[in-house]
Amino acid sequence: MHTTPLYRQLANHYLDAIRSGTLKTGERFPSIRLMMEKHAVSLSTAVQVCRELEDYGVLEARPRSGNYIRQPDTLPKTVVSTPPPLDTGAYLGIHEQVSSVLKASQRATIKVNFASAYCAPELYPLKILQEHMIKALRQDQHLLGVQGSTGGNLALRNILARRALTTKANLTAEKMVITNGATEAINLALRAVTQPGDTVAVESPTFYGLLQILESLNLRVLEVPATAHSGINLFALEQLLQSPERIRALIVIPNLQNPLGSIMPDANKARLVQLCAEHGTVLIEDDTYGDLVDTEQPLSTLKHWDCSDNVIYCASLNKTLAPGLRLGWISAGKWHERVEMLKHTQTRGCETLSQLAVGAFMKTPSYERYLRRLRKTLTQQRQQISAAITRYFPPGTCVTDPRGGTLLWVELPRHYSAMALFREALKVGIQISPGDIFSNTQRFDHFVRIGCGAPYSPKIDEALATLGRLLENQR
Amino acid sequence: MHTTPLYRQLANHYLDAIRSGTLKTGERFPSIRLMMEKHAVSLSTAVQVCRELEDYGVLEARPRSGNYIRQPDTLPKTVVSTPPPLDTGAYLGIHEQVSSVLKASQRATIKVNFASAYCAPELYPLKILQEHMIKALRQDQHLLGVQGSTGGNLALRNILARRALTTKANLTAEKMVITNGATEAINLALRAVTQPGDTVAVESPTFYGLLQILESLNLRVLEVPATAHSGINLFALEQLLQSPERIRALIVIPNLQNPLGSIMPDANKARLVQLCAEHGTVLIEDDTYGDLVDTEQPLSTLKHWDCSDNVIYCASLNKTLAPGLRLGWISAGKWHERVEMLKHTQTRGCETLSQLAVGAFMKTPSYERYLRRLRKTLTQQRQQISAAITRYFPPGTCVTDPRGGTLLWVELPRHYSAMALFREALKVGIQISPGDIFSNTQRFDHFVRIGCGAPYSPKIDEALATLGRLLENQR
Ligand SMILES: Cc1ncc(COP(=O)(O)O)c(C=O)c1O
Ligand SMILES: Cc1ncc(COP(=O)(O)O)c(C=O)c1O
Repeated sequence: MHTTPLYRQLANHYLDAIRSGTLKTGERFPSIRLMMEKHAVSLSTAVQVCRELEDYGVLEARPRSGNYIRQPDTLPKTVVSTPPPLDTGAYLGIHEQVSSVLKASQRATIKVNFASAYCAPELYPLKILQEHMIKALRQDQHLLGVQGSTGGNLALRNILARRALTTKANLTAEKMVITNGATEAINLALRAVTQPGDTVAVESPTFYGLLQILESLNLRVLEVPATAHSGINLFALEQLLQSPERIRALIVIPNLQNPLGSIMPDANKARLVQLCAEHGTVLIEDDTYGDLVDTEQPLSTLKHWDCSDNVIYCASLNKTLAPGLRLGWISAGKWHERVEMLKHTQTRGCETLSQLAVGAFMKTPSYERYLRRLRKTLTQQRQQISAAITRYFPPGTCVTDPRGGTLLWVELPRHYSAMALFREALKVGIQISPGDIFSNTQRFDHFVRIGCGAPYSPKIDEALATLGRLLENQR
Repeated sequence: MHTTPLYRQLANHYLDAIRSGTLKTGERFPSIRLMMEKHAVSLSTAVQVCRELEDYGVLEARPRSGNYIRQPDTLPKTVVSTPPPLDTGAYLGIHEQVSSVLKASQRATIKVNFASAYCAPELYPLKILQEHMIKALRQDQHLLGVQGSTGGNLALRNILARRALTTKANLTAEKMVITNGATEAINLALRAVTQPGDTVAVESPTFYGLLQILESLNLRVLEVPATAHSGINLFALEQLLQSPERIRALIVIPNLQNPLGSIMPDANKARLVQLCAEHGTVLIEDDTYGDLVDTEQPLSTLKHWDCSDNVIYCASLNKTLAPGLRLGWISAGKWHERVEMLKHTQTRGCETLSQLAVGAFMKTPSYERYLRRLRKTLTQQRQQISAAITRYFPPGTCVTDPRGGTLLWVELPRHYSAMALFREALKVGIQISPGDIFSNTQRFDHFVRIGCGAPYSPKIDEALATLGRLLENQR
């Protein structure tokens, strides 16, 4: 066990003061200089205290005026998913809005797709995977004739476990299950630890697919505010965890949150894990984008900070390696046996062929080289698209600057409508994701998510200019 | 609409008499001659009436003595699945017995496996599939780089819909979803039409995988007696449907039931579909083995008799074509949209590559030729194993004689224990399926299911002789 560093002790001290009302919303926070004097700490410690409180969402920096205590983001109310009536043929449930957006897109002819979180196919190492696939087919004549084991190919699980060590997560291959993508992994995690009617918390905004999964499992969704700066607001979460409603599980995307692109600071990760363990809330980690973080050192996972076997780790190769193969995995600790049995009853073991091909590639050094190249490419693509958005979109538009991945989260001035933009853009063959589908509340009706998976081109530039013009028409 | 044929009218007349108590259990049934006179019908009609009532399970033929009214099989009580406690790490739920049997088998070193329902790998057209796979990979460089659609590859769906016409089922490709095997198809069907706590009926005995699925979805299981002769006992089902407990859905394997090997007569299929529609019970058809029926003409599916869009059709290629590919499909009629959305939230679309390879093979005439050859081979293998069982097992053992497939259902004299045989056999590397796992009741504790997927060999012969010796030791 590590001792709590000084800056955290001080941050906790101030959090207590805010909680108890000693420091009130709108009040000016002690200046850096004052803190240094009062607590006899260094400049860097004082600065870290402020940053920590900002991450918590309780401090607001006003330019040239100092730091102020702010009202932590308003907590959205609990949204109860209503199970769809079962006797009608028409489809009604599962986050109606998401499904209407997805259906509308399917009907349209899409020329430029900013709604995808995938990379363009040519960025994936498809030729290499193809060769590994052919080799695997030739090597084992019976490959297609034998049902694979429920847990998945052990060689691949070993490779994944070894790679997890770089993010300091201690996963064992024997307690891992290969799944049909992170989607199935998260389904299994939720089915293992919840009952229909339970409440599950998510970040707000969050990936709409998670909202759909929760609704389809008849779970109640509770949204916890999150920021592009540091992800989930821990202050808000603490308050919710103390409320009488029991939160059975919490799904968090700690590294490159979708859509925020946020990366949780290590201290927040540690605190989040601790909070959940203290309150008996199972923490489900969605690490779909972890490998796309464009930093020298891999970042820690939530699983790394988990001393009490309370974090279920879910991940995927669909965004980083091969969308066509649908491979993901889950490491469920003490729930492993239950997850494995649920996997058996839900879909049985995944196809062996794809697991062999992916494993053969991932165990070579080219895999890491490929990832590094991909990250650089994506960083460039994000920068180019971000620049174009600044150029073409209305003044007052804010764009996130995530440290990796394919996604930008764009905040338009408040009076713009993302849904209107979505509908108008679709008419001219441009697909975007309106902010509305990332929450069961209306909080993001003036946000859009823009995918940067494709190399910049005149066509993309033209499409972004078109989006800008469509927004101009909204005024 | 067809008018009810004469023999059915008469059969209904007698069923009413039995129901009302006019004809009592143990009473002698009118002879064929008497029926012919009394109702002025032909010999063949009178015989059909008796066969119909036998299929219903209410008539028993005693050699040289005539037909007698029999007590329809005792109805097993409702078994309520208890949801496993969620906070412990240990695995407890989902049909504990099945899971302990499966786990024991996984730990053992298996030399001869009679527990599998698959064919031996060498019986599948693996070389051809492999070539189609390599061709598909080479043809589309981006295949592995793009996520397939949720519903599945449309070309494959078209082929499956066209083939379904031979079993007279009218499935449309647009209303079909490709799944990860029949397992996922049945999960989706159940999730689409039930709520946790609902009651779902199955045949008794039935494939243990279905019992596991039902338990994992927190559904109550009601077992309806079925016979190797004609499958589900419709008389018993009618009684259950009239009881106050609402039966939300019924899962039936009409052709080559697992483990019974039964094939439902057309009249029973029609009646079953009608009964379910009348009582608002959704009929889920599991057609996993339909293509393995060894008859000249393909048999009808339940879906064929479905005029009111109340049958959900589920099938699989895992037993007939390639266990390694995990492909199945579902045609859910008016529930199609809901099933498709659940598929999206559960696992998203299946891998495109395997769908292309399978589709490329299935659209050639070699596919039908391959199936015909496979059926003949399996018939021979079943006959050889059946003969050996008769040779080696204790006197009084009965073996089914199914018209296709890989499975024999073996009834030992009542005092033998299938579980004891299972445990003893495992010690010497032989795996069987004890009857106990095919029901939540104890009714099949002296049955074993023997898989005949592998070509007969001295090793198999020796293993069957060993099973015989182990049974001898039980006396
Ligand atoms: C945060 C997040 N989790 C899960 C998923 C689903 O992943 P998969 O395609 O591996 O099922 C996505 C895909 O967009 C995602 O963005
Ligand atoms: C009757 C029946 N239904 C469903 C299944 C599962 O099929 P799949 O392997 O396609 O998931 C089986 C497999 O043994 C079966 O026997």
